[in-house]
Amino acid sequence: MQPESINAASAGYIAGLRKNAPSAKALAQGVLNGDITALSRAITLIESANPNHFEKAAEVIAQCLPHANKSVRIGITGVPGVGKSTFIEAFGKYLTGIGKKVAVLAVDPSSTVSHGSILGDKTRMEELVKDKNAYIRPSASGETLGGVAQKTRESVILCEACGFDTILIETVGVGQSETAVHSMVDFFLLLQIAGAGDELQGIKRGIMEMADLVVINKADGDNTHKANFTKTELNRALHYFPPKASGWQPKAMTCSAVNRIGISETWQQIERYINHAKNNGYFEMCRHKQNTYWFTETIHQLLLNRFYSNSETASHLETVKKAVQNGEISPFAAASIVLKKYFSS
Amino acid sequence: MQPESINAASAGYIAGLRKNAPSAKALAQGVLNGDITALSRAITLIESANPNHFEKAAEVIAQCLPHANKSVRIGITGVPGVGKSTFIEAFGKYLTGIGKKVAVLAVDPSSTVSHGSILGDKTRMEELVKDKNAYIRPSASGETLGGVAQKTRESVILCEACGFDTILIETVGVGQSETAVHSMVDFFLLLQIAGAGDELQGIKRGIMEMADLVVINKADGDNTHKANFTKTELNRALHYFPPKASGWQPKAMTCSAVNRIGISETWQQIERYINHAKNNGYFEMCRHKQNTYWFTETIHQLLLNRFYSNSETASHLETVKKAVQNGEISPFAAASIVLKKYFSS
Repeated sequence: MQPESINAASAGYIAGLRKNAPSAKALAQGVLNGDITALSRAITLIESANPNHFEKAAEVIAQCLPHANKSVRIGITGVPGVGKSTFIEAFGKYLTGIGKKVAVLAVDPSSTVSHGSILGDKTRMEELVKDKNAYIRPSASGETLGGVAQKTRESVILCEACGFDTILIETVGVGQSETAVHSMVDFFLLLQIAGAGDELQGIKRGIMEMADLVVINKADGDNTHKANFTKTELNRALHYFPPKASGWQPKAMTCSAVNRIGISETWQQIERYINHAKNNGYFEMCRHKQNTYWFTETIHQLLLNRFYSNSETASHLETVKKAVQNGEISPFAAASIVLKKYFSS
Repeated sequence: MQPESINAASAGYIAGLRKNAPSAKALAQGVLNGDITALSRAITLIESANPNHFEKAAEVIAQCLPHANKSVRIGITGVPGVGKSTFIEAFGKYLTGIGKKVAVLAVDPSSTVSHGSILGDKTRMEELVKDKNAYIRPSASGETLGGVAQKTRESVILCEACGFDTILIETVGVGQSETAVHSMVDFFLLLQIAGAGDELQGIKRGIMEMADLVVINKADGDNTHKANFTKTELNRALHYFPPKASGWQPKAMTCSAVNRIGISETWQQIERYINHAKNNGYFEMCRHKQNTYWFTETIHQLLLNRFYSNSETASHLETVKKAVQNGEISPFAAASIVLKKYFSS
């Protein structure tokens, strides 16, 4: 039997929401008043793929922007299995415990396929989810990393305007998304665990180079000794790296998220960095540079989108690409042929 | 006193060259016949920034392309001071000694400013320069790495069509140029020297990850012990890296280019790799992938060039960029404004 009455009620409720869709101004005002419902709605609006929503979304952001930027933005990465959710749960609870308002966002371009592999399962952050001073939002979905990253960066602006002063941006440490997250945060934390041959996993992918702090999680029970050994190894490796532009010397430390050990020490390191970077002007300079970076990135992205979304170009491109792969035409000659056709259409 | 007669003679000679400028077909034929003068002229043609030369250059390349691809392409990188020129001199002489025809090219985007910091001073390769089975060509100059890399990649095609079977592409290990070179070669060699704290210099910039072989140069005299120690350290580090897509395990070895020790061993390693990669199909697959990569890269480059060379856009861009840096407008809103104006013009 079809539960018709419930469906009708749901439909009515949704229609009601639509009818009552607040104006950009009202939505922005709600965000600025610290209203979580308004914040969620505003983020849904900027995440919308419906072109009719773009202008309204831009308006909300424009109104929130003057009230943003007053936060510490922390990127957290680590390959699956290092215990990111447990760490964020423990770290987030610690932060709200010392009076912070914490927003947790994610950049996970794979979430379209995996239906939100990070933060998707909020049950892994049971306590934080119920904390009224925490706001958890899973990754925007989207086909390209650029698109997902852009939406997360806009969400940061909205969260800050809503009064969140500590923004955690989680990403899964397996692809290019760390670079995207690195370019939108003030501090970049690499989470690792002790494990044979894994000590250099971050070095391998150039992630260690971006880290301001390496935290070796699961330093508990039988694992404690191994974690301490890894800490020593990593501190040695980090020492070899030339100094960072920020003048900060990254270090490795251990923690046990599940036992809530090493959590306050992690925050102390971050506070120390923020003071350091604010004092020497790097903090401000870095945010300016990040703005310019995303401006340029977005321009490039939009130029390429327009090119690739041209259906005539797409089919022509495939034909020419085959000839290129087979070495029948040089890649450079082929590119000019494709573009000549694109610009003449 | 102005040496008028000499100037007049020079001018006449240059004019003569221009008048006698061979057709694309004649130039390509010269290259295919193994004529070095034709090869040099053809490379000068493809390096020309004069748009009138583009079509002719494309024609020469198109005619050479079916005769290219029959070579081993080796990228050689290392920071200044590791002895790249000395190594290439020794390595090149060894190769011609065993019957190879060696072309040495370079990718050095800084050469416009430094007037050819790599390979510019041919006196550093005294013997190789005089070797009739070697051809040395300094880096193309250009403002962008993309432009310089493209010209080098086209030069590779011409050198191969001219009968050179071993192509060495040198780059200076301080920027992004290694990535460009890595994506145009079959084998990537990282040159290092022993030195306090320098062991991980390649890891730091993600270059070690690209290397198929690390050669520690200057393993001579007092330095021998230190070089051997570095070799052990590096072999240990390389072991931590996950296996490469090629299934090849990179290793570190020592050499003394100045004493011609370790040179034949270097070549043996490269030969071993080539056999390995040809047997498992990686060699062919990699070249196909590189073709596609350069095709896509060139399309993107041309799209961006067209955008940035639009003078109206350029001035608008500067104004908007300032607002973005100061946080007056979000990078994303700013990008759409700039592009709306660009596409409407």
